[in-house]
Amino acid sequence: MSETRPMQIRVENADDPAVAEFRDIRERDLVGRTGRFIAEGTVVLNMLAAAHGQENGFRAEKILVLENRLAGIADTLNRFPEDVPVYTASAAVIDAIAGFHLHRGVLALGRKPEPRPLDEALTRLPERALVTVLSGISNHDNAGAIFRNSAAFGASLIILDETSCDPLYRKAIRVSVGSVLTVPFHRGGSIDEILMKLDRAGFAVWGLSPAGQHPLRDLPASNRTALLLGTEGQGLPSDLMARINTARIAQMPGLDSLNVATAAALSLHEMAHRMGLLSE
Amino acid sequence: MSETRPMQIRVENADDPAVAEFRDIRERDLVGRTGRFIAEGTVVLNMLAAAHGQENGFRAEKILVLENRLAGIADTLNRFPEDVPVYTASAAVIDAIAGFHLHRGVLALGRKPEPRPLDEALTRLPERALVTVLSGISNHDNAGAIFRNSAAFGASLIILDETSCDPLYRKAIRVSVGSVLTVPFHRGGSIDEILMKLDRAGFAVWGLSPAGQHPLRDLPASNRTALLLGTEGQGLPSDLMARINTARIAQMPGLDSLNVATAAALSLHEMAHRMGLLSE
Repeated sequence: MSETRPMQIRVENADDPAVAEFRDIRERDLVGRTGRFIAEGTVVLNMLAAAHGQENGFRAEKILVLENRLAGIADTLNRFPEDVPVYTASAAVIDAIAGFHLHRGVLALGRKPEPRPLDEALTRLPERALVTVLSGISNHDNAGAIFRNSAAFGASLIILDETSCDPLYRKAIRVSVGSVLTVPFHRGGSIDEILMKLDRAGFAVWGLSPAGQHPLRDLPASNRTALLLGTEGQGLPSDLMARINTARIAQMPGLDSLNVATAAALSLHEMAHRMGLLSE
Repeated sequence: MSETRPMQIRVENADDPAVAEFRDIRERDLVGRTGRFIAEGTVVLNMLAAAHGQENGFRAEKILVLENRLAGIADTLNRFPEDVPVYTASAAVIDAIAGFHLHRGVLALGRKPEPRPLDEALTRLPERALVTVLSGISNHDNAGAIFRNSAAFGASLIILDETSCDPLYRKAIRVSVGSVLTVPFHRGGSIDEILMKLDRAGFAVWGLSPAGQHPLRDLPASNRTALLLGTEGQGLPSDLMARINTARIAQMPGLDSLNVATAAALSLHEMAHRMGLLSE
């Protein structure tokens, strides 16, 4: 280990400023102020390591590992560039740093790439593309689950408007099983601006809502489809609904609407089939 | 209020034995030992109230309400029988009882009905029926979400084997948006025993797994279909998979399998359409 990872440093004290970014991470939102985020567990860390191969991709700044997990995750650690420092600590010290029992035993501090304009992201899309658009999604679990489902059904891009949460929040990354680090996304701008740009790029936009006009199963196949999901409580605002095509998912009457990430899964699955993105 | 709810009792002290069952409820599992459960919020309480109309249904034993919420939820409270005591308390007392900040402001202590044999539940099913079967589902969020999705897509019964968790755990009820109290379920018995009884009752059983033999979209329509879901980590055991028909949900390669509640939503939605359970 010590040959491939010369930057291995033992932390004796939870107050060590070298690991300050890992302190009390449970509910802390690092990403909003600093552009940094916390990645947990080997699955997500492998995805973060892979991002180093991309131009202007995510980068790891430092890693914190439970000392008795070091040997077990050597393969993961070796995927990172050698200049990324790996801090090691005992279970007691690491739990004192994180503020809870860290049974996964490994954390990384990541850095977001420089944001690029939405137009650029749209230009890079393939001719046949499925895009997920989120407006007012503020729950991190839902955001993470939507990323996971978008990855599963082949979405090429996820666009979050300015009223949606940052998917690089720790819990969203965890729930996404790391797909926040693999599916390209753009966050920012008003929903009107986003829809205008999608239209200009040749996308058919469908808003999902229990009050949608067309049954999901009747949606026309299209080479470029964008599925728009609104916040679970309020759904898409009615003035927006009036201006776009809308679809509904059939369900039994008299019940609450589906969870927004579940609705995303159903509609992405349906469209991915129509568009031939899935192999069967 | 005082005319319709004569059993309204003010609690001054968090240690009052009358509200002992509501104490420190966050992670407590009441249902395993006592057959009692905690229902939160007006949506779920309305469902609990409605259950009083059923023979051998769920029953409320007592209700605890934040005093300044009393007027706002009078309609919900009035749906309960008059002999169900309603305890009221200040925010400080109620938070001290529950062990966390109870922003919903209303809790009920419910009681399970007497368990009945699975055969009886199967006998009561309509000729055309969709059934959800869970084996080894131990995560309460997943169990609750599976109930919510089963309700949305018209499942008539949910069967949980002896290795699955009790869906009357507080968090599962909350995530299910109360459908644990409305969709009939049976819990207990080995999965082999359950599958034998389903077979005898004329059900086509399909196990869902990323390694399933048939694409979900090719499943034959049938008047009686049971969808079997295994635990998220391990999935269905291979010896069980070898003995039953299995289906897979197409997704992009190289990723983790879908969340089990999401897989349930996709397969229930598909089968509900095939079986004509949904209106479109």
